[in-house]
Amino acid sequence: MAHISIIGTGNMGQAISGLAAKGGNTVELLNSSDTGTAVTGDVVVLAVPYASVATVIAQRGAQLAGKVVVDVTNPVNFETFDGLAVAADGSAAAEIAAALPDSQVVKAFNTNFASSLVAGDVGGQPTTVLLAGDDADAKALLAGVVGAAGLRAVDAGGLNRARELEALGFLQISLAAGEKISWTGGFAVVA
Amino acid sequence: MAHISIIGTGNMGQAISGLAAKGGNTVELLNSSDTGTAVTGDVVVLAVPYASVATVIAQRGAQLAGKVVVDVTNPVNFETFDGLAVAADGSAAAEIAAALPDSQVVKAFNTNFASSLVAGDVGGQPTTVLLAGDDADAKALLAGVVGAAGLRAVDAGGLNRARELEALGFLQISLAAGEKISWTGGFAVVA
Repeated sequence: MAHISIIGTGNMGQAISGLAAKGGNTVELLNSSDTGTAVTGDVVVLAVPYASVATVIAQRGAQLAGKVVVDVTNPVNFETFDGLAVAADGSAAAEIAAALPDSQVVKAFNTNFASSLVAGDVGGQPTTVLLAGDDADAKALLAGVVGAAGLRAVDAGGLNRARELEALGFLQISLAAGEKISWTGGFAVVA
Repeated sequence: MAHISIIGTGNMGQAISGLAAKGGNTVELLNSSDTGTAVTGDVVVLAVPYASVATVIAQRGAQLAGKVVVDVTNPVNFETFDGLAVAADGSAAAEIAAALPDSQVVKAFNTNFASSLVAGDVGGQPTTVLLAGDDADAKALLAGVVGAAGLRAVDAGGLNRARELEALGFLQISLAAGEKISWTGGFAVVA
């Protein structure tokens, strides 16, 4: 069990809060505008849009030192909707890790639509949360949180693998926005 | 129905041949070393490893003019097994399209393990072939071939979307090589 702070009360923040509470963790859900309340979790989920991450880090960077910080973002370029807004050889997760050198950053949940986190399955397959990060203990902690809620966690590799997770997340959003799949569907991971 | 040439007799070449024949198309399956036989298909599938594509193009480039050329490769960097061997903002498909300006290049099948093309399903979901390309007619032709075999085809967008398809293909290979999923599993596309 862990004590988890979630910043952001949108559909992803709500879904991850529900998942964490279901698994028996204590959860603190904060609106991103509530900058006066310090985060107390050992795990802090940045459940805000990519465009808001820099602001959250500017406000709370010092509070995040020593903590597991979870990046759920898909840094879609919303001007073109035809690619990502990060460097071609980079990722939002890499940017966040560079900005928070004293935190253990894990990419997670960005390949899951919120609906699949709530439902626990996608097309009859258990919802699988793909994780990427350089700290094995941080990934194991988060995998435990996911598993306790009845979902599957799969370690996809080091933080550099976030690049592929963000490509997958963007592709999935692009297919749903183009009505090729629904927002309750998407990529299921078949073991 | 189409007349389809497949260059490469490995597991992908065999699986795509079977799929095309099942759908009632005529199929010509050529070993990549059989350079003396000209391709006659309207659709030519380059079912060879990425490292062999340049050689095939050097041998057969002129024969491919005016044809739909299908790129199935995953250009994994096999020295590091930690990324792709193409430019960070590019793709194998983009390289092939640049080398074959008179062909209509479609990225397809690279997100499908051969087993899923043979089985027709992944984890209870119909096998879905993701397509990317700039020529709508070429994509429609290939989608028809896929659909006639009982599989689903989904148009993922322009040829620039091959970048995400290749990221997905690499991620899937990486998960299977790391025994996180099996070679008969992988990403299912849930509509």
